[in-house]
This record gives sequence, structure tokens and C-alpha cells, in this order.
Amino acid sequence: FITPAIVDRDPVVIGISTGGTAPVLARRLRAAIEASLPSRLGRLAAFAESFRSAVAALVPDGQSRRAFWDAFFDGPIARTVLRGEERAAREAMLSLVNRRGALEALEAQEGSVAIVGAGPGDPDLLTLRALTALQSADVVVYDRLIGPEILDRARRDAERIYVGKAKGHHAASQDEINALLLEHAREGKRVVRLKGGDPFIFGRGGEEVEFLRRHRIAVDLVPGITAATAAAASAGIPLTHRRLAQAVTLVTGHGAEGEPDVDWAALAGANHTVALYMGLTNAGRVAEQLMSNGRSPGTPVAVVSKASLPDQRIEIGRLGELGALVRDRAIAGPALIVIGEVVAQADAGQVKAWVETLPLRAATA
Amino acid sequence: FITPAIVDRDPVVIGISTGGTAPVLARRLRAAIEASLPSRLGRLAAFAESFRSAVAALVPDGQSRRAFWDAFFDGPIARTVLRGEERAAREAMLSLVNRRGALEALEAQEGSVAIVGAGPGDPDLLTLRALTALQSADVVVYDRLIGPEILDRARRDAERIYVGKAKGHHAASQDEINALLLEHAREGKRVVRLKGGDPFIFGRGGEEVEFLRRHRIAVDLVPGITAATAAAASAGIPLTHRRLAQAVTLVTGHGAEGEPDVDWAALAGANHTVALYMGLTNAGRVAEQLMSNGRSPGTPVAVVSKASLPDQRIEIGRLGELGALVRDRAIAGPALIVIGEVVAQADAGQVKAWVETLPLRAATA
Repeated sequence: FITPAIVDRDPVVIGISTGGTAPVLARRLRAAIEASLPSRLGRLAAFAESFRSAVAALVPDGQSRRAFWDAFFDGPIARTVLRGEERAAREAMLSLVNRRGALEALEAQEGSVAIVGAGPGDPDLLTLRALTALQSADVVVYDRLIGPEILDRARRDAERIYVGKAKGHHAASQDEINALLLEHAREGKRVVRLKGGDPFIFGRGGEEVEFLRRHRIAVDLVPGITAATAAAASAGIPLTHRRLAQAVTLVTGHGAEGEPDVDWAALAGANHTVALYMGLTNAGRVAEQLMSNGRSPGTPVAVVSKASLPDQRIEIGRLGELGALVRDRAIAGPALIVIGEVVAQADAGQVKAWVETLPLRAATA
Repeated sequence: FITPAIVDRDPVVIGISTGGTAPVLARRLRAAIEASLPSRLGRLAAFAESFRSAVAALVPDGQSRRAFWDAFFDGPIARTVLRGEERAAREAMLSLVNRRGALEALEAQEGSVAIVGAGPGDPDLLTLRALTALQSADVVVYDRLIGPEILDRARRDAERIYVGKAKGHHAASQDEINALLLEHAREGKRVVRLKGGDPFIFGRGGEEVEFLRRHRIAVDLVPGITAATAAAASAGIPLTHRRLAQAVTLVTGHGAEGEPDVDWAALAGANHTVALYMGLTNAGRVAEQLMSNGRSPGTPVAVVSKASLPDQRIEIGRLGELGALVRDRAIAGPALIVIGEVVAQADAGQVKAWVETLPLRAATA
């Protein structure tokens, strides 16, 4: 027997299929979706339908009209319908569509750019706001570190523009990226500028914001899970700890032109965690800098590559051998290096061993 | 043109139709459903399918078999697939279906604790993984900074346990919290330990992980948007900047016993951003420490309170007046203080003015 997995909020209908692979899963998904949708969702769709031609006449441009309806569904009139107060909602809607000013504001709507942090790579580490931005974007401008699983969350008809480095080619320069964002925003489009991690931590988001503001383009900023916290969670390493570290410094191993202008002496204190971004190439030199300023060669270090992704790797060692560790084990980027006593809290081997016993324990219980 | 509203997690496919009444609503529903489903759901369905005949042979009775699959989808093997560790899951499943009493084994499964970062307060800044954890939790143990809008995302029948400080009462001690987590996990429950921000940055997540591991409880770690990046995005302040700051230090203004053991001299360099957590009480003293170690009194500072929430406030000033700024303008916590040249990049007033011109406001005016 197969119960059809349908959620019915006439005229809204949602069908769930697992291609026959897992009927129990289909039933569970149906229950979850059923529970999450407002009971008067069908009334809301019918309500919108009844104003559809009036709105189309007032807002002939398709893109502006889509913006209108988005604002409607986010707004108080929609909430009034969902509360069951349809007459009040109808009156409010009538006065809205008969008032020219409100709609003109929408029609004159300019494009915008949302600078969105995509997190470390696992699409489930996107925030809900990042996902919403992606799904309403007309154009997505993205970097090398953005994987297909994340891009897939954008609308199918959204334009996707790659600005990372392709093999044998230069990456787009920051000026070219800025020009691209401006061009599309000026066409009235909703642009999402998608960046790995957080846009404001080694993401050069600041330069893009500065440029767009100067050209009076509306900018929205959506923070993301930055590599340091992603790697910390993956490896089970607390970045701060009451006894071991009351500060953590996020620092880059690559500067604007080669070596960064960093005061390594300042980061050599024992009570302090260092999270090194883009540090594979200069790992040995950074370690030497820290040691020559007094940090112990025995300080534990962790190299976490591709944090949160299925091919994530965690290597644990000592500061004195960091350069060799990166070189000998052929660790590929992107990677984050954690330096400090907190690393001893996580025995990555232990973490891994533990993870591997998880399902087995249930099976053998 | 109409984009079909399909959520595709092959072989799981979910189709959304509004019968043509409201295409924008269909797209929004798609976005909401997309957001709520784990990215590897399709892999899970395919995984279940590959064991279907083996399970049918093991559990011939239809009703018992359905119970088996329900237990499976709630259980640790399914979670292992969703984490992307399919090989481990397959081994566990093989050992499960090759033994008698498979169902009993699943029913005897142990509990687990997910330590989840809830971000700065805006529920839309939860990650998808945090949301999934919340929605499958039997018990949610939460702090003072977790608002009702976030708690509402848990299942209705989940038990909610508050361990923050109530007026006139002590907060639960760390030992009490640890004991609570252990007790519920040992009852076989899925516990979510929900913390503001990120659990591993001034969140004492490390202590809870350490304790739970020692007691052999399965722990999952879900990173969150930490206050520094949330405040930076809200105020438009890049924490790092190619010209202005190649490092940012996250540091607490409160130590384990009062004043933290921080080397302020190390943070006084000009090419360095300081993000001060829980710093309202000691703001003046921290500023003095930085200035007496050479940081200019003219260094711009921003105090961002309740970042991401509707009653967020942003105050901009200079390091020399930080203590007075916090005192005179009666800023209430939680707040994050950003110190460094990067603050000059943000015109908070401009950010705010722009927010008020959002198209949303026009339609709902």
C-alpha cells in the first residue's frame, strides 16, 4: 500500500515523491511539511489571486511586480489573512492598490547587492538569511571556493557569474568584480555577491561595500560562518577556554603583496590562540616567527583542511614541526591552522575514533 | 515565464503548485522547504533503498517494518549519512541487518548532545544545521541570550530547560548544566544545548564537550555566527582590510574571575582590529590599557548592542572616550565593541538610512 504524500491547502498543493525508494521517508516529510505550513495558506493564495490583475495593471514591469508580491507576502496584510481576518486584509489591500505613491516607490526600485557569507562549504552551514538572499537573487557572483552544492540553492533561472581563478587564467581583479556588481545593480537586478566564510574576515567585503556605497547602491550584508569557527567545531577545538586562552586572533598568512604586515611578537603569548587563514604556504615561516618571539616549539597545532566538507582532514602536531607537517603530509587548501594550548583539548584521532564508533555502538548495544 | 517550483534531492522530489494563482508564493514556499531539508536527504533515501530488500527479509511483517524504518530515520545511522559519512553508516547498517533483533537494537539506542551555536539573536541567522538539530531535539537546554523566536523553531513537544540567570536567582552552574545534559542523554534523548553566538568562542562549549566525552556521550558540534561577525555586518565594519588590518583579535572583557588575563600591549598595534566581547563593564579600563601601550586615543571605536535584533544600537566614537560613551549613552548588553581603524569604514547612520528605504517598507507603509 502507498499513501500518496500530498499536502493540500487548496489551491496550494505540495507533492512529495521519493521515487518509490523510501515510502516511510515520504510520509515523514509530508508530516513535517504539513506541520510547518500555516493552516490558512490556501486562503492567502486565493487572496493574492483575487488582486492579481489589479496589481498587474498598476505594476506592468515583471521584475517590479515580483518585488511587490515579495513585499506583500512579507507584510502585515498577508499576516492578517493568515490570522483569518480577511475582510480587514481586503480593505487594506484595496487602499494600497488605489494609492499610486506606494507602487511608484516599488517601480522606481533600484537594484541592490547582498554581500553574503557562504560559510565553510557545507551547504547546511548556510544561514537562513543567506539562503533567502540566494533564492531571490537575479544574479549570483561567486568565488572559487563556492561549491556546486551551494550554488544549487539559487533559483534555476538566476544568472551565475564566476569570478575566481580558472586554470591557466587570472581571477577577475577586484576592480572588475566591483564593475560587474555595479553594472547589474544599475540594471535593477538583485545581485548576490557570494563569498566563502564571512565577507568581513579576509573576504575583502569591505572594499566592495565601500565601492558600492560610493555609487549609492543599496548594500545588504549577511554574515557567514568563518573558517576559524568551522574548523574549531569540526576538530572539537575550543578557540577560547577559561583556563587556556582568553583571546583568539584571526590572522592571514598572505598579505596584500606576499608576506603580511603582522606583528608576530604580539601573538606569541601563551594565553592566546592563533587561527591562521591561508597559511599553508607560509606555515613554516609563521611558526619560526612565533617561536623566535618566545612561543614554545611544543605548542600544539592543528591543520584543518576543507573543514565541514566530506573530504575534510585534520592533522595534529607541534609548532616546531608545523612547516614539515604541512609539506610532508601534502595538505591541500583551503586550510585553517590553529595554534595554541586549546588544540590539546581536541585529540583529532579521538574525535575521529569516536565518530566511527557512533553507529556501531547503536548496532551492537 | 514560470519557473517550476521544485525541490530536488534526487531521488526525493518535492513539487509546489499554487494552481497558477501565486507564482511568487510558490517560489517562497520552495525556498522555505528547501531551507528545512538537509542537503544530503537524497543520499539518505538512496541509502535506505539499497537496504530495502535486506530489511524486508529480516522484518517480514509490514507494520513492524514500518516501525523499523521510522526508528532508522530517527537514529544515529541516518544522522551519519546526513553528515556525509556514508561508509561508516553502511558498515553499521550491514552489521545491523546481519543480526537478529535488529529492531530491539535500534530501540535501545543511546542519546546524544548537539552543542549548537544560535548566532546573535536573529532567527534567520541560524544555520540550516542548527535548525535541523532544533527540529529533531527531544530536549533543548538554553541560555539567557536565546530569544523566544529561536526557541519557537524547536518541535512543539520538545522539553525546554532554561539554565540562564533569572532575576534574583543564580544561573545554573556549569556543573549543574553538565549534569543535566548527561542525565537526559542517558535517558536516550536527543539533547540540543543551545548557546548564543558560537559555542567555541567565549561560549564555554569546550568544557561541555570535555565533560560529555569523558562520559562517552555522543557529541555533535554546530558552529554559529559569532558576535564579532554579526556586529561587523550590522554596522558595515570590515574586521579585516587589506590596507587597515591584517588581523583581528576576539577577546573578552570578563575573565574567569573578574579581569581577564590578557596581554593588552600585544593588541595595541595600529594594524590590528580588536573585537571586545562582554566588554561594557570594563570598557574604560580596556581603553586605558590599550592607550598606555601606545594605541592612539583617536582610534575609532564602535559599540554595537543587540546586533541583528530589531532594537540593535550602533554608537561610534574614539578610543579616548570609550568609557564615557558606554556610560553616558546607557548602552545595555549584550554588546560587542570594535576597536580599530576599520571602524572608520562604516558610516552607521548611512547604513541605517538605507535600511529604512528598503522596498519592503514601501509596500507595508
